[in-house]
Amino acid sequence: MSKFWSPFVKDLVPYVPGEQPKLSKLVKLNTNENPYGPSPKAIAAMQAELSDNLRLYPDPNSDRLKQAVADYYGVQTSQVFVGNGSDEVLAHAFHGLFQHGKPLLFPDVTYSFYPVYCGLYGIDYEALPLDDDFQIRVEDYARPNAGIIFPNPNAPTGCLLPLDAVERLLQGSPDSVVLVDEAYIDFGGQTAISLVDKYPNLLVTQTLSKSRSLAGLRVGIAVGHPDLIEALERIKNSFNSYPLDRMAIVGAAAAFEDRDYFEKTCKQVIDSREVVVAGLQALGFEVLPSAANFVFARHPGKDAATLAAGLREQGVIVRHFKQQRIAQFLRITIGTPEQNQALLDALQGL
Amino acid sequence: MSKFWSPFVKDLVPYVPGEQPKLSKLVKLNTNENPYGPSPKAIAAMQAELSDNLRLYPDPNSDRLKQAVADYYGVQTSQVFVGNGSDEVLAHAFHGLFQHGKPLLFPDVTYSFYPVYCGLYGIDYEALPLDDDFQIRVEDYARPNAGIIFPNPNAPTGCLLPLDAVERLLQGSPDSVVLVDEAYIDFGGQTAISLVDKYPNLLVTQTLSKSRSLAGLRVGIAVGHPDLIEALERIKNSFNSYPLDRMAIVGAAAAFEDRDYFEKTCKQVIDSREVVVAGLQALGFEVLPSAANFVFARHPGKDAATLAAGLREQGVIVRHFKQQRIAQFLRITIGTPEQNQALLDALQGL
Repeated sequence: MSKFWSPFVKDLVPYVPGEQPKLSKLVKLNTNENPYGPSPKAIAAMQAELSDNLRLYPDPNSDRLKQAVADYYGVQTSQVFVGNGSDEVLAHAFHGLFQHGKPLLFPDVTYSFYPVYCGLYGIDYEALPLDDDFQIRVEDYARPNAGIIFPNPNAPTGCLLPLDAVERLLQGSPDSVVLVDEAYIDFGGQTAISLVDKYPNLLVTQTLSKSRSLAGLRVGIAVGHPDLIEALERIKNSFNSYPLDRMAIVGAAAAFEDRDYFEKTCKQVIDSREVVVAGLQALGFEVLPSAANFVFARHPGKDAATLAAGLREQGVIVRHFKQQRIAQFLRITIGTPEQNQALLDALQGL
Repeated sequence: MSKFWSPFVKDLVPYVPGEQPKLSKLVKLNTNENPYGPSPKAIAAMQAELSDNLRLYPDPNSDRLKQAVADYYGVQTSQVFVGNGSDEVLAHAFHGLFQHGKPLLFPDVTYSFYPVYCGLYGIDYEALPLDDDFQIRVEDYARPNAGIIFPNPNAPTGCLLPLDAVERLLQGSPDSVVLVDEAYIDFGGQTAISLVDKYPNLLVTQTLSKSRSLAGLRVGIAVGHPDLIEALERIKNSFNSYPLDRMAIVGAAAAFEDRDYFEKTCKQVIDSREVVVAGLQALGFEVLPSAANFVFARHPGKDAATLAAGLREQGVIVRHFKQQRIAQFLRITIGTPEQNQALLDALQGL
């Protein structure tokens, strides 16, 4: 603590991301990256952009990317916002769209950045318990609130809330913003973007870090009513005029334009997930039903922290959260078939 | 205005960046980009990074870049912060280092993003008039304040505050943070980074968008006491874990490592500036003394808005601010010798 800090800085409890080890030989199944590279068309687009033109500022509005997203989802560009990773998009949404004086609602087991944003922007929150099967109870959310946010599929559980349940949740809170954080939707869910024309209080965020294999490029999007998008634009333009660099704009746009590659690699991940689930179950693990590119699993007879440490000794990194209710779970990213087999082999001996 | 906006959103007055025209034939002298491309070593480093590895998150701490900055300036990495353009670095500094209850002080003619940040974070400010020669009056800043910020050289005037005057200003406000925004320092000033070990309240920011020709990549830095850097890190880690993408980290680091190219291109810009100043003076313009990669000039007999419009008709874009005290000035970026000549030729006929 320094006398030069603004008063709230000392109370911040920053988010802790999964480890990014600098050794490359590890089987890295800890941060839900895609095992396959980005679309070759995205690489080609960035290649074309890699020139002396980097001396010039990017388009502050990222129009090319907004158009690609709008075309992909059949919406207007005025319904699309883009940012430097979905974390930045979420931060602006917390700042600009959640109210004060009532609590923001989100699940007790969820993306651990949400309470961090609440700390950053002085928003009260209430974490509503998932049920005993780690599912969201929609009826719990129909109460006065400053807004609602949840990942769908939820993280780190991987459990999906079906689209009709999302719609019931929206109907229960017509006067506040409902943010559906769809970082993992492409691995088994239906996007709520189909509902944005019907619900002016719905904001859907997505990232290019998972299903589009561009975690290293930092691009996230939001889709919703133009009024919600305008709030995000106003904050963005009061914060950083050019959040996306030239490489990110063209690479992300090309990734949205290459539907074939996207669908093929998503299917490969989904197929691998079923293999991992079966393998884990054969080893005695209980695995929550996953619609994501990771699984959340516990073993009734083995301590999760011990398992994680044992895996690490064998060069396999998974994520373990020291947190109530989920301390006995491991979150395991779906890798390539070879990585998945390495995981199962390593678990065999533990 | 939507009922879904958080209350302060409607009062935001976002920053308006200089135009980024999508036509490439224009002589673009309006946003202070470097006329020369980035270091070939920066391009090569990005080329090596352009691979399937983009599926992986970047290093959240950008250690490679921090090390390159620390090596360049002879400071510790704990004294270095990096962000997604210096605008993001400035935003975090406003949020985390300026106090409430007293006014932040900055010049009346300065970077127009400063009052925008004040609006975003609820900080009071007082704009202190430059003197009649558009110079900062150091003695005016020795009063109770929430912090002090100014660009050095100042923008859009280009005028430099010598390092001994910066030091006197620091001595006048030992209890609040003094942020020296050195976006343009490499074109003729001495950086205040040499003072950070002596003044724990000094934060110096720089951008890679100007002297290092990487506006398209979005990288900014801050150097200061580790306590100030920690405040910025706490905010960054409560906002976005990974603000710099993989391309930006390696490209920016390589740009700092290539001192020869940097010094050569800075000298070319400085030499060209002297040519432009002489050419403008020959046309009857009054030109403020510039230590930046732009000049700020007015003609006693010609209206600035008319001149800007006339230049535009001839394919030359410069920046004109409709703002008190400077409405009769044009801010003109130094381009290549050919661009500079095109500017002077176009002015000849107006």
